[in-house]
Amino acid sequence: MEPRFSARLTALQASPIRQILAVANRPHMISFAGGLPARECFPSFDLKVPPAVLQYGPTEGDDALRERLCEDLVQLGLPVTTDQIVILSGSQQGIDLVAKLFIDAGTCVASESPTYLAALQVFRFFGARFAPFTPADVENGNPFRERPAFAYVIPTFQNPTGYCYSDAERKALSRACDRETIPVFEDDPYRDLAYDPCDRRPVCAYLQKSPWIYQGSFSKTLAPGLRLGFLAASQMFVPHLVRLKQAADLHSNRLSQWLVLDALKHPDREARLAAIVEMYRRKRDTFDRVLHEYFSDLAHWEKPRGGLFFWLQLKVPIDTRLLLDSTLAHGVAFMPGEPFYVGSSPQPTATLRLAFTHASESEALSGLKILSAQLRRFRDEACVTNRALSHP
Amino acid sequence: MEPRFSARLTALQASPIRQILAVANRPHMISFAGGLPARECFPSFDLKVPPAVLQYGPTEGDDALRERLCEDLVQLGLPVTTDQIVILSGSQQGIDLVAKLFIDAGTCVASESPTYLAALQVFRFFGARFAPFTPADVENGNPFRERPAFAYVIPTFQNPTGYCYSDAERKALSRACDRETIPVFEDDPYRDLAYDPCDRRPVCAYLQKSPWIYQGSFSKTLAPGLRLGFLAASQMFVPHLVRLKQAADLHSNRLSQWLVLDALKHPDREARLAAIVEMYRRKRDTFDRVLHEYFSDLAHWEKPRGGLFFWLQLKVPIDTRLLLDSTLAHGVAFMPGEPFYVGSSPQPTATLRLAFTHASESEALSGLKILSAQLRRFRDEACVTNRALSHP
Repeated sequence: MEPRFSARLTALQASPIRQILAVANRPHMISFAGGLPARECFPSFDLKVPPAVLQYGPTEGDDALRERLCEDLVQLGLPVTTDQIVILSGSQQGIDLVAKLFIDAGTCVASESPTYLAALQVFRFFGARFAPFTPADVENGNPFRERPAFAYVIPTFQNPTGYCYSDAERKALSRACDRETIPVFEDDPYRDLAYDPCDRRPVCAYLQKSPWIYQGSFSKTLAPGLRLGFLAASQMFVPHLVRLKQAADLHSNRLSQWLVLDALKHPDREARLAAIVEMYRRKRDTFDRVLHEYFSDLAHWEKPRGGLFFWLQLKVPIDTRLLLDSTLAHGVAFMPGEPFYVGSSPQPTATLRLAFTHASESEALSGLKILSAQLRRFRDEACVTNRALSHP
Repeated sequence: MEPRFSARLTALQASPIRQILAVANRPHMISFAGGLPARECFPSFDLKVPPAVLQYGPTEGDDALRERLCEDLVQLGLPVTTDQIVILSGSQQGIDLVAKLFIDAGTCVASESPTYLAALQVFRFFGARFAPFTPADVENGNPFRERPAFAYVIPTFQNPTGYCYSDAERKALSRACDRETIPVFEDDPYRDLAYDPCDRRPVCAYLQKSPWIYQGSFSKTLAPGLRLGFLAASQMFVPHLVRLKQAADLHSNRLSQWLVLDALKHPDREARLAAIVEMYRRKRDTFDRVLHEYFSDLAHWEKPRGGLFFWLQLKVPIDTRLLLDSTLAHGVAFMPGEPFYVGSSPQPTATLRLAFTHASESEALSGLKILSAQLRRFRDEACVTNRALSHP
């Protein structure tokens, strides 16, 4: 007799991230796939751990870290007190908790499309339907055709598009949510990686009426291996989120909390962050130059003003999942665009995401060269096939 | 307009652990409440972290740690290979993942009663109904009145009772599950804390047909603050569990994985474990002696052969949740028995759980003295009330 799985389990597909990263980690593979920070950016921790840190701790997180984060969030314009802050085992956990808070089978979630695929995966697992919106819908003032349980948004250096909302767009989105008291779930892991001047005030800071959940991460500016993030939320959500957190993993790693607090307080913090930003800016500029060299006739893209990703809209309507199979065979990984869209249809979107932060300059050069060559081959074959089809 | 929460959120009650520990952590409070290891038992880590450990890692966990755990589990009699092992962010996470795997609204879960209350909380959150069983039901050979989606069991030094199944009972349980191919979820966080000789072979090691999930923890013998545990499972469950893990928090803390592997490989590992066991055995014996001094006329209990807890069955049918209010006012915390039972009724069970591993000898002495005095006061008042009621 076969075990009976939960009904929602059938909604949980094999993750494309997982499958790709499994291949991308092979030796000699140049990976543009995962959003990995550069190893050279990691701090060298001075590890003298106080023994208290090894004991069980509070579900909400250690007070000293929450107090410090509260100060930083108030600086960003969020009206918070320390008791509104919950430390997370990485911001992926925030997505799981918020999904548990709101989503039943059939619950409507408003989301950008494309957006962070592992958020879509979790929302879908709990039974969400999606009401997609774009920054253009936001500017038109009416992004929601149906009242959603909440709106999920990454306004700053979005994953995968790299888009950064202007202040006008941030205000328009907050007004649209306030109008119907729609809760906002703002995911903000990339905000510190800004390479050009741009608006970064949280959407949640503009809200007048809607309750909100804002989350951030230490994976991008400190170290992903520490698995630490945080959320701040309207008072009405906090007790629920804390209970959900406790049921999920009791509390977050205290060694990581201690190390992160130490890093946040370190006198070199600003200088360290500035050095990372400078290094990533250089990588981005090199990447953009190489893209212009090899992809001008193949794709459109905007040079991202921050974050980790270039988002390419190809000029030929090919399925980038098939392209991936062929570039992997040549040692180059990237992320096909399809799984970032809310639709679950296998429609090819002719989009792809390139992380520029991890590869070295020479890897970027040779990897993009291989990718463009494979893309050209696909385009030419597609042309041949199309011509063959139209002149049988 | 109020936010609409998920239907299952109403099932998630405020956790009694949380509320009690919040009070129990106040200065000068003697706590018998939480299952906290003694701080003196923590290792002093030699922290020279390789930078690779700070990067994102595989969802299943780091290979070297999984390989090492696999060797240990094969020694215990579990038929596993490395690819069947998943590293968890503490074994609480295993409960969340297994609940997601199996439980829809109304799904039947077989469970001991009383049992680990935070497991009941998670199962209930996902919509489980419970089919309770006792070790006595197991010995009678027919513990399941209804076919459950899985059977949850803590056979070794159970939380809260401290009970340890005999080999005969372990075999009987595995036969009962095999008969109807009922998946077994075996939770085994206390197995290394054995103070007297007893059977500890996993129930899963006896299964012939049923698929299974076995989980363990490093919180009890290394350090809870590291938030690290693991599970091993039948091949059919592994891909599902890995996807659920990824959706929950991408992967577990890699610094903790590295530290735990280091501790498992350390030449002093056995000696360190033996010293912890010897220290806890002494604490248990002292605790038992003090209990005999103050509680002989108040309660029944078995001296536990391992684990962290004494489980007291009181001779007077009082509500220990009310008793707790009064002992807290005198600076003593314990865990009332009620929330460990599968029923959600507020029926008083006249049971309570005392963790003996955290308090010092003098704290145990004064704390148990206060607890017994309060209990006596309750008993005498109850007698007065009863007499007043029967002779109005």
